[in-house]
Amino acid sequence: MVDNNFRRELGQQLRVDSVRAAWHAGSGHPTSSMSAADLMAVLLDGHLRLDYDNPHAPHNDHLIFSKGHASPLYYSMLKAAGAIDDAEFATYRQFGSRLEGHPTPRIPPTDVATGSLGQGLPVGVGIALAGKRLDRLPYRVWVLCGDSEMAEGSMWEAFEHAAHYGLDNLTAIVDVNRLGQTTETMLGWDVETYAARARAFGWHAITLDGHDVDAIDAAYAAAESTTDRPTVLFAKTKKGKGVKAVEDLPGKHGKPLDDPEAAIAELGGVRDLSVSVAKPDTSPSVHEFSVDGGSLPVWETGDHVATRLAYGQALAALGSMRGDVVALDGEVSNSTHSEEFAHAHPDRYLEMYIAEQQMIAAAVGVQARGWVPFASTFAAFFSRAYDFIRMAAISSADLRLSGSHAGVSIGADGPSQMALEDMASLRAVHGSAVLHPSDANQTAKLVGEMASRKGITYLRTLRGKTLVRTTPDEDVHIGGSRTVRSSSDDRVTLVGCGVTVDEADKAAELLAAEGIQARVIDCYSVKPIDASVLTTAAGDTHALVVAEDHWPEGGLGDAVLEALAGFEEPVVVRKLAVRDMPTSGTPEELLRAAGIDAEGIAAAAREMLASRRAAVG
Amino acid sequence: MVDNNFRRELGQQLRVDSVRAAWHAGSGHPTSSMSAADLMAVLLDGHLRLDYDNPHAPHNDHLIFSKGHASPLYYSMLKAAGAIDDAEFATYRQFGSRLEGHPTPRIPPTDVATGSLGQGLPVGVGIALAGKRLDRLPYRVWVLCGDSEMAEGSMWEAFEHAAHYGLDNLTAIVDVNRLGQTTETMLGWDVETYAARARAFGWHAITLDGHDVDAIDAAYAAAESTTDRPTVLFAKTKKGKGVKAVEDLPGKHGKPLDDPEAAIAELGGVRDLSVSVAKPDTSPSVHEFSVDGGSLPVWETGDHVATRLAYGQALAALGSMRGDVVALDGEVSNSTHSEEFAHAHPDRYLEMYIAEQQMIAAAVGVQARGWVPFASTFAAFFSRAYDFIRMAAISSADLRLSGSHAGVSIGADGPSQMALEDMASLRAVHGSAVLHPSDANQTAKLVGEMASRKGITYLRTLRGKTLVRTTPDEDVHIGGSRTVRSSSDDRVTLVGCGVTVDEADKAAELLAAEGIQARVIDCYSVKPIDASVLTTAAGDTHALVVAEDHWPEGGLGDAVLEALAGFEEPVVVRKLAVRDMPTSGTPEELLRAAGIDAEGIAAAAREMLASRRAAVG
Repeated sequence: MVDNNFRRELGQQLRVDSVRAAWHAGSGHPTSSMSAADLMAVLLDGHLRLDYDNPHAPHNDHLIFSKGHASPLYYSMLKAAGAIDDAEFATYRQFGSRLEGHPTPRIPPTDVATGSLGQGLPVGVGIALAGKRLDRLPYRVWVLCGDSEMAEGSMWEAFEHAAHYGLDNLTAIVDVNRLGQTTETMLGWDVETYAARARAFGWHAITLDGHDVDAIDAAYAAAESTTDRPTVLFAKTKKGKGVKAVEDLPGKHGKPLDDPEAAIAELGGVRDLSVSVAKPDTSPSVHEFSVDGGSLPVWETGDHVATRLAYGQALAALGSMRGDVVALDGEVSNSTHSEEFAHAHPDRYLEMYIAEQQMIAAAVGVQARGWVPFASTFAAFFSRAYDFIRMAAISSADLRLSGSHAGVSIGADGPSQMALEDMASLRAVHGSAVLHPSDANQTAKLVGEMASRKGITYLRTLRGKTLVRTTPDEDVHIGGSRTVRSSSDDRVTLVGCGVTVDEADKAAELLAAEGIQARVIDCYSVKPIDASVLTTAAGDTHALVVAEDHWPEGGLGDAVLEALAGFEEPVVVRKLAVRDMPTSGTPEELLRAAGIDAEGIAAAAREMLASRRAAVG
Repeated sequence: MVDNNFRRELGQQLRVDSVRAAWHAGSGHPTSSMSAADLMAVLLDGHLRLDYDNPHAPHNDHLIFSKGHASPLYYSMLKAAGAIDDAEFATYRQFGSRLEGHPTPRIPPTDVATGSLGQGLPVGVGIALAGKRLDRLPYRVWVLCGDSEMAEGSMWEAFEHAAHYGLDNLTAIVDVNRLGQTTETMLGWDVETYAARARAFGWHAITLDGHDVDAIDAAYAAAESTTDRPTVLFAKTKKGKGVKAVEDLPGKHGKPLDDPEAAIAELGGVRDLSVSVAKPDTSPSVHEFSVDGGSLPVWETGDHVATRLAYGQALAALGSMRGDVVALDGEVSNSTHSEEFAHAHPDRYLEMYIAEQQMIAAAVGVQARGWVPFASTFAAFFSRAYDFIRMAAISSADLRLSGSHAGVSIGADGPSQMALEDMASLRAVHGSAVLHPSDANQTAKLVGEMASRKGITYLRTLRGKTLVRTTPDEDVHIGGSRTVRSSSDDRVTLVGCGVTVDEADKAAELLAAEGIQARVIDCYSVKPIDASVLTTAAGDTHALVVAEDHWPEGGLGDAVLEALAGFEEPVVVRKLAVRDMPTSGTPEELLRAAGIDAEGIAAAAREMLASRRAAVG
C-alpha cells in the first residue's frame, strides 16, 4: 500500500516547488521549507485526514505551520493536494494573492495566521482542546514547528498545557534543521536533549531522521496510537536539503536561491505529482451543549456593584442562553469573576493557569472551531499576550477579552497590577472594540453584545464597586454612550468612562454649586466612540475635560480628540489622566494624586472657563 | 558556627512579621510569604552577601522576589537585616510608603519591580549575565520564585538562556507550596518532575523540604560550589506554614489572616531578632571595556540608506565611543543591523535568540548594574515582550529599544512581520520616548541621544532605503522635528514620520503644481512631539494632514491631536493611516492601498481645502 518512492518523489516536488515559489516572488524562505519537505510529504500521503474540498468541515484534521515562514512548503502542499492550481501557486507574495508571505486564513483551510514564532503550537493546543472537550470529535491537530522557535517560552506553555490536558490528538513535528536566521540554535542537532525536555513536560517524544520516510511514517503511526498524551517528533533535518549550494550552510536563510534553475535540476526537475489526501470519517456527530435559557442579569439603580462581578454573572447567564459560549481564565477567576461561569458551566470552562499567552492562543484555537470564547485575567496581564492578540487580529479571530482590576483605582496592590496602557494597546488592534462600562447594567448588556461581535472585543472592568446609574431598560450598545446629565446652559462637557464617570458627575455637582452647568458623558464604548454625542457637546460647550484612569496616551482622551479631529469650530480639550507612576494607597488617594477625582476634574473645568473668560476679555 | 535554632527562630519572625504586615495594611499575601520564610531565613543568615548600608555597591549579591506578592516576607527580611526600621515597616501598602504592595526599586536594594509573575527569573538571568560577561565580578544572583509562575513560558526562556550561558552565579529558589490563587498548580508537590524539567534544560536541580533549615543550608552550599551551570532548588513547602487555620488550605490566597493575633501566638509571638548579613568581598575590581573613541557616522544628503543600517552603524560607533554600551538582539541581528555592533564589540553583544521576553528582561538586568543596553528585534516583535516593557517602566529602567521592519512598507512578508501598533503601545509606557527618523543622519544623532536618556526610548526603523535629507550639521534631538518645506503661503500642513516623510514631500510637489503651497513637517520625535512647530503650523494653515505607516490609533496622528488639544483657533486634522488589514505586495502597492502614499496625502489635502472653500462659500 505505502509507496515510499512516491513519498520521496513528493518530498522532492515540495522542495522544487518551494524553490520555484521564492524564485518567482523574489523573496521567501526556500531553505526552511526544504528541510521539512519529507516530513510533510509523508503527512499528506497517509496520515493527514483533511477534505480540501470542504476545508472548514468539522471533522477535518488541522495542520498548522507554526514556522509560518515555511509558507513555500505550505503552498506547495496545497498545490499537490489540489487545493490550489498552478496559476494561483504562481501568485505567491503578490499583491492581491491569497498566498501571502506567511500563511493567513485568507487561504483555506488555514485556521490561523502564523509568522510570529512560537504561536502555532499554542493555538494547536486550543484546537486540540476544542476537539477533546467541546466538539468531542476524533480529529487530529498536526503542528509543524521550527527549532529556533523552541526558544520562545510560549512553546513550553503549550507543552505543559497539552500534557496537563492529555491531548493525545495533538502531534508536534519539530524540524530540527539546526540553523536559525543568523546562527546555530542553542541546541543545534541535539534532538535527544529536546526529547528529554518534552518527556519531562509529559509528552511522548520521538527522535528521528527527518529525511527517512520510513522513520517518519513510523513516528506518525506511533503518534496516532499513543493515548493520554501528546506526541512530538524531533526530526533531525538539513536546511536547504537536496541542494549542495545551500544545504546545511549558514547565511542561506530567508532568500531565494542564487541559481534556482540549477537547484531544480539537482532536485530532479519539476514534477507534477498529485496526492489524494485522505478524508476524515464524518460519521461522529459534533457535540452540542444543552442550555437552560434565561436572560442576562439586571441590577437596581442605586445599588453598588463591581463591574467585574457583573461580568461574571452576565457571562454565566449567557452560558445558559447559548451553548457555544466558552470561558478561559489565567488562574485568577475569583478576581475576574469568570468563576461564576466556571461553577455554572464547568464543561465549558478552560483553566489556563498563569500562562496568558497560552490562554489567548487557546481562545484563538477554540474560535477557529466555531466556539465563542471569553478570556479573562487582570487587565494588566493582557500585555503579556499582546503579540498573540495582534496575531489573532491577522487571523480574523473573534475573541472576547475581559480585563479586571483596571487603573489606579485598584489601590494598595501597586502599579504592577494596575492596567494603565490596556486601552491604548487594545485600541491599536485592527478591528477591535474597547469597552469600559461604569456600572453593572451596562456591563451585562455589553457582555451580551460581545458574544455576537466579530473581531477582538475588549471589556475593561473595575475592582471596586460603582453606583448602578443605568436603568435596566436603557439602550446600551457598542459604539454608544450615556449622557449622565445635560442642560441647555452647559458651559463645559466632562467625559469619563469606568470609575471616572462617578468622579465627573461629582465634579458637575461641585461646579453646579458654583453656578457652572456641566454636561457629563459616559463613554462606555471607547472604540468605537460615540462621535455624534461628542460633536454635539463640542458644539454646545466648546470645552471638554476628559478624565480617564489610564496613561494619557492612546486611551479615552485620544479617542475623544480623534472624534473631534474634523470638527470645524474652535474647541478646547483638556486631557486628565495618570501622569506620574502610581504607588500603593487607597483608591481615593490614588485618584486624587492622579488628578482624576471629582476635585481634579472640577478644577480643570474651572481653569478652562477662566482662561476662556480671560481670552474673551 | 551555624545556629540552626537561630535560623528557625528567624524564619518564625519572618512569618510573624508577614502576618503583621498584611494585618495592619488590610491586604497582602501573608500565606505566600509564610511558605518561603525558612528559605529566606537561611539565605539571609549565611549565604547572601549584601551590604545593606551600601545597597547599590557593585560587589553586592542580588536578591529578586520573582513572586513579588510575597512582599510581606521581603520587607520582613529588610527589617531583620536592619535596612528599614519598625516605623517604616508599619507603613506597608500605605500611600507615600516605599513599601509598596509589590516591591519596586523605590526601596533599596531592590533592583527591579516584580508583581507580574514570571519576570524575576529572566531579569535575574540578565544580572547574572552582567556579572559574568560585563562587570566580571563574583556576585551571586538569588531569585525566589513561586510555583504558580512556573507555568509562564518566560521562566523557561530564563532556564534555557541561563544554562546556555553557564550562569553558575545564578540560583533559583522555587517555593513549591502547591496552591495557586484559586486552585492547585498543574504539578502540585511533584518536585521531582520540576527537577527533571530543570535538568533537561541544563540546570543543577535539587529537591528538598523547604522547611528543613539543614537541607536548605546544604542546598545553598551546593549551589555555591556548582560551576558551569545554574542551580535551582525545588523546595516543597506549605502555604501558610505554621498556622493551622491557613496552612496548606485552599481559599487562603492574598488576604490577611482572619485572626492574626491568634496566628502570631501560634507562631510563638513577636520576636525582635536582627541578622548580620554578610558583606561581599570588595577587592575585585569592576571590569571596564577600553574604547577607541571616534564619532557617530554621517551620510551625504542625497544618498539612499535604510535607517536600520544607520542604527547598526551608529550603535557600533557609539560602542567605540563609550565602554558602557551593550547590545542585545533576538536572533535577527542581520535584519536590525545590530550585527554591526556585534562584529565591532563582540564582548558586549548578547545574543538572546528567539526569546523577546528574555531579551527585554536581560536588558533590564544589565541596566540595573549600570550598563547601557540597546535591544533590537523586528518592531512587531516587541509586542511579545510588552508586559516586560511595562514592568521595566515601573522598575525605572533605562532601556533603548530599536525595532526594524516597521509598517506596510516592508512589503512581501505580510502583516505578521509589520509593526502597526508599536508606536501606540510604546507611547503608552510611562516616561517613554518614541522616535521614528526618516533618514540616516537623523537616526545616528538620535542613537547618540538615546544612550544618555533616562527611561524607555524606542527607535522605529525602516526596512527599505530612504533619501538622506538631513544635513550632517542639522540639529536633531528628542522632542524636535524637521520642517522639510514651508512658505508664507502655506495653506495646508502635511505631517509625516519615517517613510511617510518622502510621501508627504512628493505630495507637496503634486500640490505645488496645482498652485497649492503645503508645509511639510517631519515629526521624527513622535513622543515627545514638537508641539510648538505643530501649533505654529496650525495657526498658519488651520488644516493638517497626518500620514503614518501605522494603525490609526495611538500613533503619530493621535500625538498631533494631543499637541493641538489646547489650541483655541479652529483647526481641522485629517489622519491618514493603515485602516484595512494589509497583505503581501510591494512597498509601493501597500502604501498606495493604505492611502498613505503621495497621491493619498495630496488627495486628502485637496479634499480638506475644497471642503473649506465650500464652507466659506
